[in-house]
Parts: sequence; structure tokens; C-alpha cells
Amino acid sequence: MQTVYVNGDYLPKDEAKISVFDRAFLFADAVYEVTSVIGGKLVDFAGHMARLHRSLGELDIEPPVSDDEMLDIHRRLVAENAIEEGMIYLQVTRGTADRDFLFPEKDVRPNLVLFAQAKSLIDNPFVERGQKIVSMEDLRWRRCDIKTTQLLYASWAKSLAHADGADDAWLVRDGFITEGTSNNAYIVKEDGTIVTRQLSEDVLSGITRSAVLECARQLQMKVEERPFTVEEAKAAAEAFSTSASSFVNPVVEIDGSTIGNGAPGPVARRLREIYLEKSRAAAI
Amino acid sequence: MQTVYVNGDYLPKDEAKISVFDRAFLFADAVYEVTSVIGGKLVDFAGHMARLHRSLGELDIEPPVSDDEMLDIHRRLVAENAIEEGMIYLQVTRGTADRDFLFPEKDVRPNLVLFAQAKSLIDNPFVERGQKIVSMEDLRWRRCDIKTTQLLYASWAKSLAHADGADDAWLVRDGFITEGTSNNAYIVKEDGTIVTRQLSEDVLSGITRSAVLECARQLQMKVEERPFTVEEAKAAAEAFSTSASSFVNPVVEIDGSTIGNGAPGPVARRLREIYLEKSRAAAI
Repeated sequence: MQTVYVNGDYLPKDEAKISVFDRAFLFADAVYEVTSVIGGKLVDFAGHMARLHRSLGELDIEPPVSDDEMLDIHRRLVAENAIEEGMIYLQVTRGTADRDFLFPEKDVRPNLVLFAQAKSLIDNPFVERGQKIVSMEDLRWRRCDIKTTQLLYASWAKSLAHADGADDAWLVRDGFITEGTSNNAYIVKEDGTIVTRQLSEDVLSGITRSAVLECARQLQMKVEERPFTVEEAKAAAEAFSTSASSFVNPVVEIDGSTIGNGAPGPVARRLREIYLEKSRAAAI
Repeated sequence: MQTVYVNGDYLPKDEAKISVFDRAFLFADAVYEVTSVIGGKLVDFAGHMARLHRSLGELDIEPPVSDDEMLDIHRRLVAENAIEEGMIYLQVTRGTADRDFLFPEKDVRPNLVLFAQAKSLIDNPFVERGQKIVSMEDLRWRRCDIKTTQLLYASWAKSLAHADGADDAWLVRDGFITEGTSNNAYIVKEDGTIVTRQLSEDVLSGITRSAVLECARQLQMKVEERPFTVEEAKAAAEAFSTSASSFVNPVVEIDGSTIGNGAPGPVARRLREIYLEKSRAAAI
């Protein structure tokens, strides 16, 4: 039985429960992070903690435990759930309070939940066959830079994409791709330049995005951070997405148009290798 | 101790818990309704059930119980919590499943939670003094016609309005007011015409909105359903909002500008009286 952390307790999955008056349940008033585990170690834990603090700060929620305690909880969940490869999910909610649109008083303490998911991450079938993407209007709220649990539209879009025979959706606002449903989106031009949307309130500041762009620059690849369209993606040499759990994930089709020669491209492959090599070495 | 309904059980508040793998907790993948109770009876229960079915249908979630069972649960919560005046809150989530952006298979059953809140509704201080409103950019997702628990921005906006010395926020998209944080918004022109935004994916189809507009038409008041700006609101003869728990709620100030003579207006007062009279008579 999976072990889940809830406010200081390590519980069997069936007993991992939260009050129905929790504000994540009633208002999506919560933020989260997902940290990958490779070889039993955490990938870029410090990056995830930094982003968590930013999300909490934007919403004026106090961190429920110190970063050291958070690390201990992550490690204990890795150990108790025997996670060799997978993810640790963490969620901080504003806390439990009588239902009211007004944020509760500060004596209401945040709730903290973490759980582990075992998953094969490195051996990913998309590395060989690539993802098929469909574009969809980005109907999400306008603060996608804050990693909240308001994920219904992202979840819905991915489910619609699957129903449509695709693997994921890339979201489009005002004619330009913002990002994937739970990943950042990239194209590679014929000259090898990597294009990905610049950071703003329209996209999440991906921890993997930051690390992968750093790899690209170290490899002397040219990077342009700017919006791009579906048409530009269709005409690209290759395309890929990045996320904490998929690393660098090639894309071979968008809206039925084959990208490049229809196979995962060399830039995505190279970046995935380098990113994984660095991540393994730096994991804690 | 308050009695709460969770998936068939009537529980003391402290024991009313839900799995941390519930999709409302993790993805805001849930819809809700709030039905007012006056004199121990439910106001426009049929209207709330009709809207619930629409929300569920849009998101492809099965109704967890029949409408008759839902009525029984509402009435039992009114009785067990001795609610003379207040609200019954109901929430349907897509269910409990391992965390995945993809909607789970159909064998995952929805979770159903209801609770009661005792609250003085008819005797509302705003009826005498009116609400002060501040306008704020509408940053919510683009399907506000579906009553989901993605309420963080509405909650945040109301909290920011309070911090600013106001009572609520009216949200503005592309220069026009959409609605309040948990209510529909109206102005009354000098000639007595009531103006409120037309229904679309930008606003919730308020149950009280529908009933109040019906009252207005029966009273031979002219109604225009169209967008209006903050400037038009500032120049209006009066203004008000409607919601299931506040009925018709006068507004006397927006962004520091007094509306009309600064006192609740006669149109709002008349509509509130008529609406309450009809609601009491029709409550079940």
C-alpha cells in the first residue's frame, strides 16, 4: 500500500484524506509542485522549492514547513514507497475554513499533502515515436505563471486531444502557442534555432525549461524566446516539449501536419541526453 | 456539531473528509451549486438542479444521484442542521483516481459532498447601506458559464477588494464588466432601464438573475441584456447585484464614484421585495 503524507502523518493511501472544507477542494486555492525521481534521487529539488515559494508568495500563503523538512518528507516518501523512478507530488492549500470567498484569517494554517508515483520516466515510448499534438484555444485563467490546482481546462484539453487520437494539446492564445497542457512547447527552425515562448503571466516558468535552455546555450545552440504560431510549428524542422516528468519529449505532428521528416529530431534527442546526464549527476 | 453529507454518509463536520486523490482537490475538476433556504425551505431547487445538470453535461460527469435523492439530501441537511435561513452547498467531483491529467475511465464514480451553512439572508446590512465595489481585470478562465470550483481568482479578487476597503469586485474583460465575484452585475439607467450583461461563456447563468429579470419584466420594467462599462456604471441612476444567497443586493459606489445619490435605489429595493415574496411562496 502506497504511503501518503498529510499534515505530518504518513498514512496508507486509503486513509489519506482531507477535510471537505479544505480550500483546495472548494476553491482550487492551492499550489503544487512535481519533482522527478531518478535512481532514487530528486531532480532539481532546489528549483522546485524556489518556484513553490514564488507561487505561495503571489497568493500570500505561508510555507507550511521549512525547505529542509520538505526535503526530509520527499526522501521519506521515496524510501517508504521504494521509488527508483517516478515523481513526488506536493500540494499546499490555504487551509481548512468555513466556506467563504474571502481568504480566511491568518490563524488558518495551510494544509500540506505529498505522495509518490512510481513511473518509468527515462524509458519513454515517445522518445522513439514522438508525440502527436493538436492545437486548442487556451481558455485558462490569466496567471498561468502561478502553479495552482486550477487545472480543469488543462486536464480537459489533454483528454479531448486523446479522444481525437493525439497525445497532447498545445494551447493557443491570440494566435500564438502558449504552452502544452502540463509542459512548455518548443520548435526548432531549419537553421537549428530553438524557439520557445518567453516567460510571462501566460506560461509556467518550467524548472525543466530553465535547465534545458541552459543546456542548449552551453551546446552553443541559438535560442529565441518569443511567441510562435501553429503555422510556424508545422513548418519547423522539429519540435518538442519539456516537463519535470517527461524531460525533453519530441513532437512529430501538429494538427495532422508532419513536422520535419516525422521522426523525433536530433536537437530534442541531444538535449534529452545532456539534460538527463546533468540531472542524474546533480540529483540529491 | 454540523452534519455534512459525503457519498451517502451523514457525518459530523470533523469527520467529513475526502481522499487527497479526489479530482476536485488535485485538478478543480468539480462543479457546485448553492441553494438558499428561507423559512426552512429551498429556494428554486429545480433551477439549481437544471444548472447542475448542464455543468455536469459540459464536463461529461455523470450525476451521482437522482434529483429526487438530491432533494432528500438537501431536506435532511436542512433538518439535521436546523437551518431556518442559510444555504445548502453541493459539490460533485469527477471522483477519486490516481493523479493524471487525462480524465479517468468511466468506472471511477463521482464524489458527492453537501453541507449546510446557517446565515441571515433576508436581514442583510447592504440592503440599507449598499455595497462599495471596485473594478478589477477579469482573469478567470473562459468558461465561466460552467459552475466549477476553479474559484481562486474570484476569491482572490473579493479578498483584494476587502483589503481595499470595498465590499466586492466587479470583473472587467476587454473594457466591459462581466459579473461580480459570485454574483451577476446590473445598472439602472436614468430612464429606469435595467442593464445586465447577456448570457455567454463569460458569465454564469444566475438562477437568481433569471428569476429577477422575470420579476422586472412582469413589473413592466425595461431590460437590456448587453455589456456595459465601469464609466456607464458610474453614471447610472443605481446599481445592484444578484445571487442565490444575497438575492438583490444594492450597489452605491464603484471605484470611489458614488452611484446616483449614494443610497440604495428604488428599482433594486422593489425587485428584492418582489423576488423574496415569490421565492417564499414557491420554496419547497
